[in-house]
Amino acid sequence: MFRYKLVFEYLGTNFSGYQVQPQKRTVQGEVEKVLSEIIGETVKIYASGRTDAGVHSLGQVAHFDTEKTLNESLVKSKMSKLLPKDISLHSFSLVSNDFDARFSVKKKTYVYKFYLSRYERAVFNGLALRVNDNVDVCKMKDACKYLVGTHDFTSFVARKSGKTDFVRTIYSAEITESGDGLYLFRISGNGFLYNMVRIIMGTLLKIGSSDKPPIYMKEVVDGKNRALAGKTVSPCGLYMEKVEY
Amino acid sequence: MFRYKLVFEYLGTNFSGYQVQPQKRTVQGEVEKVLSEIIGETVKIYASGRTDAGVHSLGQVAHFDTEKTLNESLVKSKMSKLLPKDISLHSFSLVSNDFDARFSVKKKTYVYKFYLSRYERAVFNGLALRVNDNVDVCKMKDACKYLVGTHDFTSFVARKSGKTDFVRTIYSAEITESGDGLYLFRISGNGFLYNMVRIIMGTLLKIGSSDKPPIYMKEVVDGKNRALAGKTVSPCGLYMEKVEY
Repeated sequence: MFRYKLVFEYLGTNFSGYQVQPQKRTVQGEVEKVLSEIIGETVKIYASGRTDAGVHSLGQVAHFDTEKTLNESLVKSKMSKLLPKDISLHSFSLVSNDFDARFSVKKKTYVYKFYLSRYERAVFNGLALRVNDNVDVCKMKDACKYLVGTHDFTSFVARKSGKTDFVRTIYSAEITESGDGLYLFRISGNGFLYNMVRIIMGTLLKIGSSDKPPIYMKEVVDGKNRALAGKTVSPCGLYMEKVEY
Repeated sequence: MFRYKLVFEYLGTNFSGYQVQPQKRTVQGEVEKVLSEIIGETVKIYASGRTDAGVHSLGQVAHFDTEKTLNESLVKSKMSKLLPKDISLHSFSLVSNDFDARFSVKKKTYVYKFYLSRYERAVFNGLALRVNDNVDVCKMKDACKYLVGTHDFTSFVARKSGKTDFVRTIYSAEITESGDGLYLFRISGNGFLYNMVRIIMGTLLKIGSSDKPPIYMKEVVDGKNRALAGKTVSPCGLYMEKVEY
């Protein structure tokens, strides 16, 4: 049995999310269709994690198994030709059987792109989150530091269904400017709970648009209460940037 | 007679350029259709300049005349509702009759967004220019300084049809990084010749991908010969950023 690793990016706009669903256009579905056609057998891929509808990825990682020995560069060039325009293959390689795209993850990085404006901007449609131009980004920048470290992120979980362990380690969280009108909120951690990045972004916006000080973020973390956090904001502008092993 | 000024942005991807053409979807055509419907008469707008198919704008400026007194905020909100998603209105205001969106221009700024990669990237499709990953961006950055100043830009004109004066003043030209994988080549001047920005970008790439030194840009400018410059590169990734009066 051979295990292969894929790294690919996608523009989430025209997909019903990452995960296969009947009768829907999904990222996983498109990749599996192309791979199955090339390899000549039904291929099922296992990714580092799924992304919601509208979420983009700059470097999703997945693996799959086959009994066949594949010519890596040939499969790569065939995939590049067959994949739709909104998915690009970065790499395709043989890996050892103990590599697991989901369970071997050491670090994940997400980026939320946002811009301040009173109206939706044509050139950022689907690519960045619109935020009212009265938010105080300086306060949001300050608030980021209270996310870093190992914390119980119960306040930032949509639904407690299934999971019981809400402790995650955040390695870094910061807001920078891109030079083309966008702010980039970038957050890295050893793992993220369902909707966690969207709720963190909502909490940053709650701080930026109210009289709550940056340290309110610490209160939300310590309070372990979803009601203290902000809204689950739109996935528009959210990118899974990188997965590290 | 009242003159009104519009500032708007657009994503050029799904337009056959800026200027009205029969049976084609154009930016000017869409804006005029919406304005005519709101004002109840045929409106013709005059812009700071046209942009080619696929070129985006972050702040196109246009004016039009009417005998009617318009409620500016009402027209603005109606336009925002009626314009397609790939056009956003920034402002709508009454101006003096001697303002001319085309002839009063003092300064224009263009941005070329590009990224280095061996393959097309899904998340930048139509939004940035792909450049081979072996180009030397440092050399390109250095070469920018030879563009600044008042020069005869004959080397950077596609066709000499019509125009006879090729002297333009470039106020600034530089390449910066955006923090999300893009390079931004930003150039400001008192005016630009047909295809000039695309040919300048092609010349920067010629320098970045060959053994020609940065100062080759000066040779191209001084040589007044189109053959010395680089190719007219794809308009993909080109944004008319700002017009100043």
